[in-house]
Amino acid sequence: MLFCDIGNTTYHFFDGKNSYKESIKSFDPSSITQEVFFICVVPDILQKLQHLQNWKNLEVCIDRKKYYDTMGIDRIVACEAIDNGVIIDAGSAITVDVVKNSEFVGGFIYPGVTFMQKTYKNISKLLDYKFNFEVNLSKLPKTSKDAVSYGYLKGFYLEVTSYNIPVVLTGGDAELIHQLLPDATIDENLLFRSMKKLQKVCFAR
Amino acid sequence: MLFCDIGNTTYHFFDGKNSYKESIKSFDPSSITQEVFFICVVPDILQKLQHLQNWKNLEVCIDRKKYYDTMGIDRIVACEAIDNGVIIDAGSAITVDVVKNSEFVGGFIYPGVTFMQKTYKNISKLLDYKFNFEVNLSKLPKTSKDAVSYGYLKGFYLEVTSYNIPVVLTGGDAELIHQLLPDATIDENLLFRSMKKLQKVCFAR
Repeated sequence: MLFCDIGNTTYHFFDGKNSYKESIKSFDPSSITQEVFFICVVPDILQKLQHLQNWKNLEVCIDRKKYYDTMGIDRIVACEAIDNGVIIDAGSAITVDVVKNSEFVGGFIYPGVTFMQKTYKNISKLLDYKFNFEVNLSKLPKTSKDAVSYGYLKGFYLEVTSYNIPVVLTGGDAELIHQLLPDATIDENLLFRSMKKLQKVCFAR
Repeated sequence: MLFCDIGNTTYHFFDGKNSYKESIKSFDPSSITQEVFFICVVPDILQKLQHLQNWKNLEVCIDRKKYYDTMGIDRIVACEAIDNGVIIDAGSAITVDVVKNSEFVGGFIYPGVTFMQKTYKNISKLLDYKFNFEVNLSKLPKTSKDAVSYGYLKGFYLEVTSYNIPVVLTGGDAELIHQLLPDATIDENLLFRSMKKLQKVCFAR
């Protein structure tokens, strides 16, 4: 049995012990014959997977009424993992979702590190810097590199810390965001643990 | 006599009364025979203009020691325009600079509206929304459109309002940012006024 979280850039697999990624562009899901329990935020791939009987969509296990219509299934499954806290899933996008007493309060979507770096570069090659996640946020910057890092990180930091509740970090860039939010907990397998729980409850035989 | 602010996407001209824009890609600066006092943040174009005698760079009038080495000349000229306040220049990039007692305190760079909208779209076509500048920032969103608008605007809003000093808006997207910061003043010709002042002091005959 495999678990798979399909995001905008990768198929992220979990075999119960280890996780590994395959590129969204080159990977062929029909190359797998095992049973795969998945979630997917990419409409084209979702359609493709409907024709593969061993790929089982965990979305059917979700009570969607607790969330909102167009909310990504990855965000929903992350919220199902905790009772209280902020979940920051840092991938292509950084999604920030707040759960209180097992209720989804709301959330927002911020561009992920790689996409945002590209954005600055596209605006001007003079802004093509690698972000400094340890930039001093208590003082307005006086270098271009810090002006870009501060622009990306300061408001995000102010918003997330304003909730005053524990933060859980997951996703490929969790380590980077951890430099910004050292009090947060990293939980790489948050989504997979939640998927496993859903699978147990809903596909039990 | 003309003034010209050359940014990453346009030549922005001012003839003393009216302003108009030409695309950076198609406009040929040698087509102008009048005297043009300019500032420019695009290195390639700056090099080209060095060979045109009627194009006079206002950067020579600036005491760069008051600022930092790689700071864009447009930001510097904007800062020269005021004694106290926050200047938000909303173009391809949104630059935010704080001036106190005619001293540059520091500033940061945030992606402009158009570039940021493209960024969300590039992450996923499901995030391809036009920003809602009147999104409710006092409550975490429960729709994707608001989740994206809130992601772009909330932290930025928190940061800028934290200074508690008057905000001046300029640049092509000043009207949009004004919806977010209704207490700010729009000053479309801030840069040109500052350029005019510099020209008078420094190129006086």
